[in-house]
Amino acid sequence: MPNRQILIDSLPTGTLTVDNYRMQESPIPEPGEGEVLCRTLAISIDAGSRAGLQGSASYAGAPKTGIVMNGNTVARVEQSRADDYQVGDLVSCGSGWQDYALHSARSLTKLDTADDPALYLGALGGTGLTAYFGLLKVGQPQPNETVVVSAAAGAVGHLVGQMARIHGCRTVGIAGSDAKCARLIDELGFDAAVNYKEDNFRQTLKECTPDGIDVYFDNTGGTILGNALFRMNLNGRIACCGVVSQYDTSNPEPGPRGVPGLLVNKRLRMQGFLVFDYVAEYAAARTTIGKWLADGELIAWQDEFHDLESAPRALVDLLAGGNVGKRIVRVAE
Amino acid sequence: MPNRQILIDSLPTGTLTVDNYRMQESPIPEPGEGEVLCRTLAISIDAGSRAGLQGSASYAGAPKTGIVMNGNTVARVEQSRADDYQVGDLVSCGSGWQDYALHSARSLTKLDTADDPALYLGALGGTGLTAYFGLLKVGQPQPNETVVVSAAAGAVGHLVGQMARIHGCRTVGIAGSDAKCARLIDELGFDAAVNYKEDNFRQTLKECTPDGIDVYFDNTGGTILGNALFRMNLNGRIACCGVVSQYDTSNPEPGPRGVPGLLVNKRLRMQGFLVFDYVAEYAAARTTIGKWLADGELIAWQDEFHDLESAPRALVDLLAGGNVGKRIVRVAE
Repeated sequence: MPNRQILIDSLPTGTLTVDNYRMQESPIPEPGEGEVLCRTLAISIDAGSRAGLQGSASYAGAPKTGIVMNGNTVARVEQSRADDYQVGDLVSCGSGWQDYALHSARSLTKLDTADDPALYLGALGGTGLTAYFGLLKVGQPQPNETVVVSAAAGAVGHLVGQMARIHGCRTVGIAGSDAKCARLIDELGFDAAVNYKEDNFRQTLKECTPDGIDVYFDNTGGTILGNALFRMNLNGRIACCGVVSQYDTSNPEPGPRGVPGLLVNKRLRMQGFLVFDYVAEYAAARTTIGKWLADGELIAWQDEFHDLESAPRALVDLLAGGNVGKRIVRVAE
Repeated sequence: MPNRQILIDSLPTGTLTVDNYRMQESPIPEPGEGEVLCRTLAISIDAGSRAGLQGSASYAGAPKTGIVMNGNTVARVEQSRADDYQVGDLVSCGSGWQDYALHSARSLTKLDTADDPALYLGALGGTGLTAYFGLLKVGQPQPNETVVVSAAAGAVGHLVGQMARIHGCRTVGIAGSDAKCARLIDELGFDAAVNYKEDNFRQTLKECTPDGIDVYFDNTGGTILGNALFRMNLNGRIACCGVVSQYDTSNPEPGPRGVPGLLVNKRLRMQGFLVFDYVAEYAAARTTIGKWLADGELIAWQDEFHDLESAPRALVDLLAGGNVGKRIVRVAE
């Protein structure tokens, strides 16, 4: 049985398409001393990985073609030449879009097999930790403050809103369809939700934030950020998590007009962060998030595609706003 | 003898001109119980006051015509009906552009008569405190870090660079002429200075910041901010103090393209502030600044116009970059 691999075949010149990828089959590799062969069970599909295909500067480094597309994965150990790992162990790793990959033991994290391992790509993984640290460490919400989050039905956003609610805040989501907005309110307990594609978005955002915005968790940048800036309260905080509105284009918008004027007038703090900065605190955060999940206070939306072949389609559709919650591709049982 | 007053006659539609002002003469007012009549000695000329003439939102509130132009002043008490003030006392107040004004005693600050009172409009006044709190509280520079300041030959900027040097930082100024740049290096000890009007500004800024930028003190916004963003180091801090590039226009530029993308990639913190937020710490800061001045570690550049009538010209010229250091108008001895 071959190892199916999906490679970056060409860099997108505008919007990403499935034709930017191609499948190849390779032999399944053999682990060397200290290495582990991992069978991919599920792949995380992330808007941020689009940034790695951009010609410009990105935390993902310079883009390359002819390599396996990157991505976080959960996997099962198939062969082990490392003392700490046994066949059948569940692990978190960065195998990318392929059925099998070798990893050194020290690059793996062992997972609790009692949970659905795919949760470690979502609420217990990078997206959950991103929501947690971005909201709590960068946004620093206080009880009764208003927290607004963009891409609110997305992998990070739907968790941010719920974590803000858990912290006693009024929570408003910004999402791309009326259906998403309704689900945020009905299923996750957001206080309000606004469809940014409506003509009257700016006015509706105003009406949904009668006391202004104290913390804005920005997943989008662009005009949504621009509109949120005008609703910020004095001493408000903006946690800059990502720029999904700008990833899937070769012609990014200019920055929002309120920068830096409104930052001065309103004494705003706008701060970018990456979840990796908080690695020392991952374990404690996972314990807290796990407790919220177990108590039913936090609901983790999973949005699943099936089979490795669907990964390009899953990403292209995600960038077009097709997902609700954490998008993953299930590759094997 | 009348009280000469300069009024805002019309709001600028593009660049501010002296014709937006007119002079009128009024009787000198009489102090009521608890009031003090103040004779203006010197007026602070501030780029920020241009923002108050803008139709858009500003911390200075909505613009009005037919009122005396606002401005911080130092003054001498001419008549007093308040117990704490005697004729001849020197005070700091906000009389605006006029020879005389009434103030309630509690709105005044008594000044140390040993100093040139005009220093209380500069290094010991709002501009010095702005430099101090913006650099130290918002920028939080560490020894050996690189600090860059825009409008570096301006009232705030020339102090920021020197305070950064006092804190053991490498200091780079951005200014609008080669002559200003030379003076920053030769007279104030800046390590480097860059003329943003040169075609190769971006390249020169890069060469002058070989280790990147850790703290950027932004007085300008616009393209200078945009260029500085690209030189920021991981975990860099941007203190947003003002937007002088955008005040004197009715068509502000869009925000810098790197917002919020670069903030995320580099985990930058960008924070607006106003000096008023630190009023509880003014006295301690003044003591420190006064000591630096006395020791010759800090040089306060004063840039003086003479006679009340010159105030409109002094502001219009300031907005065109004509000043070096703190611009004031001396009105009386």
